[in-house]
Amino acid sequence: MNDASAAPHDGRDHRAGDGDRDGTGESPVSRRRVLRTTAGAAGAGIALGALGTGAPAAATPKAEAGTGTGTETEAEAEAAAPARQGRTMAGVPFERRGTIRVGVVGLGNRGQSMLPLFLAMPGVQITAVCDPVVAQAERAVARVVAAGRPAPAVYTNGEDDYENLCARGDLDLVYVATPWELHFEMAKTAMLNGKHVGVECPAAMRLDELWALVDLSERTRRHCMQLENCCYGRNEMRVLRMAHAGLFGELLHGAGAYNHDLRELLFHPDYYEGPWRRQWHTRLRGDLYPNHAFGPIANYMDVNRGDRAVSISSFGTPALGLAAYREAHLPPGDPSRKESYVSADRTISMVRTAKGRIIRLEHDVSSPHPYSRINSLGGTKGVFEDFPARIYLEPEHSNHQWGSFTPYAEWDHWLWKEHANPPGGHGGMDYLMVFRLTQCMRLGLVPDFDVYDAATWTAPVPLSHASIKAQGAPLPIPDFTRGEWRKKRSGMDSDKPSE
Amino acid sequence: MNDASAAPHDGRDHRAGDGDRDGTGESPVSRRRVLRTTAGAAGAGIALGALGTGAPAAATPKAEAGTGTGTETEAEAEAAAPARQGRTMAGVPFERRGTIRVGVVGLGNRGQSMLPLFLAMPGVQITAVCDPVVAQAERAVARVVAAGRPAPAVYTNGEDDYENLCARGDLDLVYVATPWELHFEMAKTAMLNGKHVGVECPAAMRLDELWALVDLSERTRRHCMQLENCCYGRNEMRVLRMAHAGLFGELLHGAGAYNHDLRELLFHPDYYEGPWRRQWHTRLRGDLYPNHAFGPIANYMDVNRGDRAVSISSFGTPALGLAAYREAHLPPGDPSRKESYVSADRTISMVRTAKGRIIRLEHDVSSPHPYSRINSLGGTKGVFEDFPARIYLEPEHSNHQWGSFTPYAEWDHWLWKEHANPPGGHGGMDYLMVFRLTQCMRLGLVPDFDVYDAATWTAPVPLSHASIKAQGAPLPIPDFTRGEWRKKRSGMDSDKPSE
Repeated sequence: MNDASAAPHDGRDHRAGDGDRDGTGESPVSRRRVLRTTAGAAGAGIALGALGTGAPAAATPKAEAGTGTGTETEAEAEAAAPARQGRTMAGVPFERRGTIRVGVVGLGNRGQSMLPLFLAMPGVQITAVCDPVVAQAERAVARVVAAGRPAPAVYTNGEDDYENLCARGDLDLVYVATPWELHFEMAKTAMLNGKHVGVECPAAMRLDELWALVDLSERTRRHCMQLENCCYGRNEMRVLRMAHAGLFGELLHGAGAYNHDLRELLFHPDYYEGPWRRQWHTRLRGDLYPNHAFGPIANYMDVNRGDRAVSISSFGTPALGLAAYREAHLPPGDPSRKESYVSADRTISMVRTAKGRIIRLEHDVSSPHPYSRINSLGGTKGVFEDFPARIYLEPEHSNHQWGSFTPYAEWDHWLWKEHANPPGGHGGMDYLMVFRLTQCMRLGLVPDFDVYDAATWTAPVPLSHASIKAQGAPLPIPDFTRGEWRKKRSGMDSDKPSE
Repeated sequence: MNDASAAPHDGRDHRAGDGDRDGTGESPVSRRRVLRTTAGAAGAGIALGALGTGAPAAATPKAEAGTGTGTETEAEAEAAAPARQGRTMAGVPFERRGTIRVGVVGLGNRGQSMLPLFLAMPGVQITAVCDPVVAQAERAVARVVAAGRPAPAVYTNGEDDYENLCARGDLDLVYVATPWELHFEMAKTAMLNGKHVGVECPAAMRLDELWALVDLSERTRRHCMQLENCCYGRNEMRVLRMAHAGLFGELLHGAGAYNHDLRELLFHPDYYEGPWRRQWHTRLRGDLYPNHAFGPIANYMDVNRGDRAVSISSFGTPALGLAAYREAHLPPGDPSRKESYVSADRTISMVRTAKGRIIRLEHDVSSPHPYSRINSLGGTKGVFEDFPARIYLEPEHSNHQWGSFTPYAEWDHWLWKEHANPPGGHGGMDYLMVFRLTQCMRLGLVPDFDVYDAATWTAPVPLSHASIKAQGAPLPIPDFTRGEWRKKRSGMDSDKPSE
């Protein structure tokens, strides 16, 4: 591990919640599954046809005099949506419990780094752990025991042993931190076994899988949650509260990014366990990792809670970065030499909402640049932009110059007021995410995010690939809520509950 | 005039080459022309149909494995191009002359501010001036005389008197600094009278007018030049030279903007002469002023000199800013109350090039934000971003953190090395633009930019409007060069000529 090499010295942890640390041993089976996923990814364009690929005018809202009215699109997307198999999960609270029993699947970088956070939470117990790599499982058990807790049950019997973990009767939550191609089946299995599930980004890699997660959550009445830690960043939560308080006026545009130069890590012999993440760059042309960009902006704009992401148009540069890095740094005989990379070095996706707002999403992990999630929001009263944080709000500012974001600390979310210096990675975002998730479960509250958010934030993975292949044609983003998005409801801007 | 109120104190003149200072008296005739232009603008979508509007897949290049090959598009666009009426003007030098005789049409803000620059140039003479507002013409004459030069001929007899100026036999260059809706007819008249013409931004407001300028330039063998001063900015010229020297590696993406909060000026009683500029916000949905964003990035990427802008997809927010400003600051009886604004407060356009690069163009003059032209460029070896200037280039930088742009002063363009502190507005950009233009004319050199650049940089005006109306459908940008773009040739990155 050489995190330092990849750490931007900008006072923030560089690995902003990316799945870098997800990892399981690469077994023949997982290779088989990777291939299966590949086939699916390649077929995404076809799968999308049913949703109106390439029919932008019909698939996106009529905007009159510059204001968007979602009417047509909603009809479209709802028509395109498969029949609901269960009641909505929007606004459905957890059952209240004194103790939350957690099963952890995937004990690579990410799983290991999250374990101590779960162990630090009140009323949380690590009941079972699973990873085909025995050494990683043993490391996890030792950590739990060292924290003075009972040793968890261990599942290391090959890649399918997670099914036995999910089948246990004494688990409330399954936490999935495995390679991307395994997320969908593990989330599915957890729900089918009556467990709530929290999945690392992205929730799945195909549009049909996202619909399946929505249907499973509604059918099983279990929550399927995208653990999008950047939504819990201090600046993100502050901007969220300021936006909802009207300080930006009518919201007009936002932008988010996962611009993080991962070239060294993607070729590192053991930073990831196996080449699974780099190999995704041989399969999809578009944005492989949109959640950190999309999640926070979607929250600012109440996407799925009053507004809706309606269409996406994606643009990609040539894919030159990984091959150039390999040429300069890897020996001629390296197995990676056989790989042919197709993922654009930088993708830019433009998302339109039912209210006519625009969201820009960027992804760039294969070219040299400083770390940035952009995290900008603009409205009729001003604009915020991050990396570094700066703000311009009327009436305070009227000189065409950025102002400091520091004076706005009063707007910090209660989670940040209560936990001034949260422990753990990514500047405390991980800790607050786990704290809030387990708090909601203990107190029987509605979770901050649900399966509709997971599906929406992840939809750009297959859709950006298909839009780039269609030379930037706008593609409809399905209404995973099947119309529920019109209902205003609270999300991450929660009030502090009384324990 | 209250420029200060609109000046961002970022060490740069805020009115970065925008046409703010263009102005002529608003006569019934100009109103009539405005209406005619309006009708044209409204019809842009139809006019575009002929160029393949709404057929993105066919109209934009097939990109394989992330690399763009322009083949299809070139065929398309060339097929769509009207038959050439004269030989190309690419690479055509001026006739060498000891003295350049200039006629100035439009003596409002912009014309008046440019006069002293022309007067400061070696071998340049102001032979005639024209403005229907007599007081402005007299002001101009006084300026010329005060500089110890012969009084120029004066044309103030109504709005069409510029035709008589153009008809003079003793002019080499007509400089047009009038409201946007008049640019096309004045450029046309100048060329038909055998004069080279320099036009303020934008060159025209309709696609058919841009084609007409190309055909006129080729037929009359006169140059029609978009006076895009931001291309002469110090940072822009430095980045241009660094890009062409390969410091950024293979170029991947760039972005430019005209994000300049003009709300106060657009409603100011006498900053502009009449409401002509604000009224454009009642006609077009898209980017009204793309040249400052597009010009510099197009130069970095050798657009029309080895690469080509192939398609544009545009996205616009609701149009709320001007109406909100009017509500807050103008009396109930104000004539502006009758206006209905449709121009998006922020437009974002994505341009794809034949080589598969992507260019982002932003326009926002009606919402509160700091001034920025963005001016970013990214390639396989690093990235630059402006406002403020910062850079990340391998191998110098390897820490995920922005570096200073100051150490790269050695890469300054010879114009900036020769003129350390150029006089005039916009940080000296205007001066260097006029210096270089008149130098090329005196020495009989090829101009830094020609009618193909004028048409390409301006094409987003009608095309962004049409793309936004088509919910972001990619529209083809015509190949105004009719295939000449494939030829590598020098543009703004000139060598210093020997006088």
